[in-house]
Amino acid sequence: MTRRTVLICSWLEPELVERIRRVDDRLEVLHEPELLGLPRYIADHTAPVTRTPEQEARWRQLLARAEILFDFDRSSGPELATRAPRVRWVQATSAGIGDYVRKMGYAESMPETVFSTASGVHARPLAEFCIMVMLAFHKKLLRSLRDQRERRWDRFAAGELDGQTLVIVGVGRIGKEIARLAKAFGMRVVGVKRTIAGVDPQSLHLDALHAPGDLHRALAEAQNLVLIAPHTGETSGMIGARELATLPQGAVFINIGRGALVDEPALIESLRSGHLLGAGLDVFAEEPLPPANPLWSMENVIVCAHSASTAYRENERITDLFCRNLRRFLDGEPLLNRFDHALGF
Amino acid sequence: MTRRTVLICSWLEPELVERIRRVDDRLEVLHEPELLGLPRYIADHTAPVTRTPEQEARWRQLLARAEILFDFDRSSGPELATRAPRVRWVQATSAGIGDYVRKMGYAESMPETVFSTASGVHARPLAEFCIMVMLAFHKKLLRSLRDQRERRWDRFAAGELDGQTLVIVGVGRIGKEIARLAKAFGMRVVGVKRTIAGVDPQSLHLDALHAPGDLHRALAEAQNLVLIAPHTGETSGMIGARELATLPQGAVFINIGRGALVDEPALIESLRSGHLLGAGLDVFAEEPLPPANPLWSMENVIVCAHSASTAYRENERITDLFCRNLRRFLDGEPLLNRFDHALGF
Repeated sequence: MTRRTVLICSWLEPELVERIRRVDDRLEVLHEPELLGLPRYIADHTAPVTRTPEQEARWRQLLARAEILFDFDRSSGPELATRAPRVRWVQATSAGIGDYVRKMGYAESMPETVFSTASGVHARPLAEFCIMVMLAFHKKLLRSLRDQRERRWDRFAAGELDGQTLVIVGVGRIGKEIARLAKAFGMRVVGVKRTIAGVDPQSLHLDALHAPGDLHRALAEAQNLVLIAPHTGETSGMIGARELATLPQGAVFINIGRGALVDEPALIESLRSGHLLGAGLDVFAEEPLPPANPLWSMENVIVCAHSASTAYRENERITDLFCRNLRRFLDGEPLLNRFDHALGF
Repeated sequence: MTRRTVLICSWLEPELVERIRRVDDRLEVLHEPELLGLPRYIADHTAPVTRTPEQEARWRQLLARAEILFDFDRSSGPELATRAPRVRWVQATSAGIGDYVRKMGYAESMPETVFSTASGVHARPLAEFCIMVMLAFHKKLLRSLRDQRERRWDRFAAGELDGQTLVIVGVGRIGKEIARLAKAFGMRVVGVKRTIAGVDPQSLHLDALHAPGDLHRALAEAQNLVLIAPHTGETSGMIGARELATLPQGAVFINIGRGALVDEPALIESLRSGHLLGAGLDVFAEEPLPPANPLWSMENVIVCAHSASTAYRENERITDLFCRNLRRFLDGEPLLNRFDHALGF
């Protein structure tokens, strides 16, 4: 019986490691938590790692044996190919890995290695984040909290999601889940998607579906706009000053995709002028968001520190996905969520 | 043809008054906006009124003729019976009118007059408020906003509504709408209702339905609790220290009913101790909330100035209801939302 060696590369709850071990007798799961970064919060997959020289040597030994990685080894970065020459598959813990894989040059250095993303795992928390942001702005929560800090009792009327239009740019699993919740609130939901041929909008909980060429037509009616497209050559900077100006006055802007999708200075200007009612931002051109960035102090902005997708149950869901993929790997079946270097997602 | 005289008693958009006029030729609609209080916000129904002696005399003339009132005449208060002796029906603009009607003594002074509430009109904005508050606490929005004010990039993991239990005390039209939205988020929803005999929980979007006698059993599993029961002798102070202690650690408490439903000092203590994760409060023991009340400054409290139900489209919805009721009144049919003095709602 050929054994397959799995190396756990970021902190994972022991009971979840056990669940991985139990998938199949043919697996050898290497898990030495003292060699991994200590998580700063639940489901932290980018915790800084410090190892003694002895620990680093030990880690290199594990890498040299590993055929399957649970998460990228961020301590190796671009050296991964040379340090882990036997690796055939990396299961990522993030959905949007295109930027990282490109930066590390893995397409060139590890041409035989399959990468699979955690796409789908973050759908629920991200969809909840979008609904929360739309409610917060249209129902004037931030105004209410400011009144509260000043102990001011000032009654007010507010909008509601019912009857509003939401445009979602990028309708993968996350976009579909946002659409499903938005429909429950009585919103009209329009999707913009790279490939729309043969796609039934209703199957994605959408009232209408447009190709990227019709982006402007969609934006013109977007009282709410959510960006959740992957970052690729096509989507980079897709929302600039002209696109923001196309949004109706008083629109709510949400970015849970990647900061590079939007021209950040143009976004700041659109928020300053009051053209946008508000923005809920989980991703930024530069992360961590630099202290001098004006977005921090804008009263109509909710800054989330790239944490909108991070839920208490995240590692449990990633482990579920990994276990399903392990069975497929052992059975020679195609992996779920296989990353495509050419597409970038 | 007998004409019926309608008097508009709080500020209403002219186009909505026109809609009322068009209901039937038998209606004479008295609308003199200069005699009404100027709204401080859209759908303000308690705006202070100041009239010159001449204006007050004119107002008394209108009251003397009126048979149907759109909204209470708050400038008359307990004198309404003597000033408006021909009134047979008052259409309120609020859903919870029990406290006001009791305080004004209308059951005694106007025994022949029918009161109808605006029940149902506020279901959507209030349901959206409840979802917003649950999301804000479980997804750590207030923490995120505090980090933002200090320009601190601090990644975090958070909870989600999916899989949580919500208990709704009072399942009328508002409670049912809250339940419907909560089910879309994958929550388990339990109702507590005065009369449950013959009620199918599923018809109210509930997973389970309890009578008030089983309140404690329901509270023990309430990771989220919404109070939306009317204020009556039975519900007054129904949530005290013991009931709050019965809630699981980390529960979210929401009151959109009436302040008198809860023992406010006990609630403050439960929030201070950290037993409750947070509270979203639209109603208070005393309104406006007194400046010295500790709720104002608590970091785990969202104070909304009794505005959670006030939506831009509120007057439109109340007018729709009033027009339907006018047709019923003219046709001698029973009114929708008829208030029952004995029940208090």
